[in-house]
Amino acid sequence: MQAAQYLGNSKFGLAECQPEPPGEGEVRVDVGYVGICGTDMHIFHGAMDHRVDIPQVIGHEMSGTVAEIGAGVEGFEIGEKVVVRPLDYCGECPACKAGHSHVCHNLKFMGIDTPGAFQKSWTVKARTLHKIPEDMSLRTAALVEPLSVATHDIARARVAAGEHVVVLGGGPIGQLVAQVAKAEGAHVLVSEVNPVRCQFARDHGVEAINPMEQDLVEFVDSWTDGKGADVVFEVAGAKPTVSIMTEIAKVRGRICIVAIHGDPIEVDLFKFFWRELEIVGARVYEHEDFERAIELLASGVINVDTFISHEVPIEKLGEAFTAIDAQPDGMKSIIRIGS
Amino acid sequence: MQAAQYLGNSKFGLAECQPEPPGEGEVRVDVGYVGICGTDMHIFHGAMDHRVDIPQVIGHEMSGTVAEIGAGVEGFEIGEKVVVRPLDYCGECPACKAGHSHVCHNLKFMGIDTPGAFQKSWTVKARTLHKIPEDMSLRTAALVEPLSVATHDIARARVAAGEHVVVLGGGPIGQLVAQVAKAEGAHVLVSEVNPVRCQFARDHGVEAINPMEQDLVEFVDSWTDGKGADVVFEVAGAKPTVSIMTEIAKVRGRICIVAIHGDPIEVDLFKFFWRELEIVGARVYEHEDFERAIELLASGVINVDTFISHEVPIEKLGEAFTAIDAQPDGMKSIIRIGS
Repeated sequence: MQAAQYLGNSKFGLAECQPEPPGEGEVRVDVGYVGICGTDMHIFHGAMDHRVDIPQVIGHEMSGTVAEIGAGVEGFEIGEKVVVRPLDYCGECPACKAGHSHVCHNLKFMGIDTPGAFQKSWTVKARTLHKIPEDMSLRTAALVEPLSVATHDIARARVAAGEHVVVLGGGPIGQLVAQVAKAEGAHVLVSEVNPVRCQFARDHGVEAINPMEQDLVEFVDSWTDGKGADVVFEVAGAKPTVSIMTEIAKVRGRICIVAIHGDPIEVDLFKFFWRELEIVGARVYEHEDFERAIELLASGVINVDTFISHEVPIEKLGEAFTAIDAQPDGMKSIIRIGS
Repeated sequence: MQAAQYLGNSKFGLAECQPEPPGEGEVRVDVGYVGICGTDMHIFHGAMDHRVDIPQVIGHEMSGTVAEIGAGVEGFEIGEKVVVRPLDYCGECPACKAGHSHVCHNLKFMGIDTPGAFQKSWTVKARTLHKIPEDMSLRTAALVEPLSVATHDIARARVAAGEHVVVLGGGPIGQLVAQVAKAEGAHVLVSEVNPVRCQFARDHGVEAINPMEQDLVEFVDSWTDGKGADVVFEVAGAKPTVSIMTEIAKVRGRICIVAIHGDPIEVDLFKFFWRELEIVGARVYEHEDFERAIELLASGVINVDTFISHEVPIEKLGEAFTAIDAQPDGMKSIIRIGS
């Protein structure tokens, strides 16, 4: 079978491999579609070579069908549509014991720390699988994983109906966070410097402004009648967004840190004292976040098909990665593998 | 009557004033004792001249007895012992309407933005008063206000029995936070560079280490069996403590920002993502925090008398301020006014 391997140095190669038979507690999944995540791009750029084991199959935003069921696995049938929650936890550390296995001290992220989904067939632990409805396309279902990041962020930030939510950064995750916040009944504003992405937000029913053209602090003040934003999502990971997140949050406002900040960055801690602000960090997702994402898609409350800006077959995977760097307006590229 | 006025430029003067008769809804309180707060020191150093109206009576950590009752005030009797929660809020802004009047958008802090307690008689709104038990000394009761800062911090950080709590900074507020955390049944560690203050913590039944002599990260790791601290209080307001607060917090740990940071400071936001950390800012106190502080003192669960390192009469108030700068080991200086 075909497997796309990351070879290091912004290169991929197609290898011919044998499907891995599922061991006890495992399931082999025939892969349908796999999205390209920002993390995959970091790997492509060589920034995570310390975590991957070159040559390695990466990829984790996937959908597929059950192809083979290992010993001791119950509740699955051959041909069922599934997605993988790509977290392999130890079950023994203080975080796992406290019920937070998604932030396990020894977490292995499948597709980074262990082999991933850019291959015809992926063998995984059955406990990582979530079933999707029969009538949901595998193409759509490849977006369950990034949508689960968003449902997790919304849960962490305790977004409630009627609240004013500002999303700083309108990339794929920021836009999905905006969609889930809207689905929860919040008033949503996306702040994004790229006009195409601003328009994308508006086309999907949420407000958007370009903070290079309009004063975001003044806008939020007026938008919220002087109250300030109930919740701010920092999804951009940039100095100006970290600086402004504390400006626009209301008294007792919640700021959810979604972006990955490689280096320490200046934060106005005075505002945390003065307005009793809150930060909540959010990482990946929990079981219920996947279920919520599947439910939002299955019910049609959120439509992610328009997020897919590019679709290419596995044979052109390397080109798809290269193209993303050249397309700052693009939203989500997905790789067609087995459909 | 005597009133100590801040004259600017690290100077105080004693003035002879008339007591202010209480208007409607007000009470005139004969002042017993008034503690000197870090904020008073900032005023003394000239750092808050933009907020005070020189010459101004400052001071807010006070106790006293009801001397005169204005029209429309019910529930108080002449001679009753009281303390003042020195917050004057507007009642109209979004924060007040949301029930957070202690962080009112237009908050006036009495003793900074309006006249304070370093005078024989202080006339205040009745709604700022809390009764203290008859058998509590006014000297002890002068510590209710700083203890209420601590009870508020503990409430904001949701400290629970059995949790591991690290307090970064062993000044008066840090030590009071440690005491309240201990009263809640937490395991408490104070990290403090001053050996006298380390010993003060130990003498009050909590662990203490000097992070210049011992590795705090290693200590907490071993102290918590690899879990990390459930709660970290950043009370020092220094670069090294902000840097280490994210190192020692457990997965989903809470960091409470108590210190006032004048300038933006580098924070390791990556850790907020990676370990799903939380920050909660805490400022002053709410009604129930004062009641909790009074209860902790009245029941004898916390004894604050040993926190009073210096006591001087109002005539020597200026000298008391000067002395604090020269006494890095000192804990709390209080001014004896009317007892």
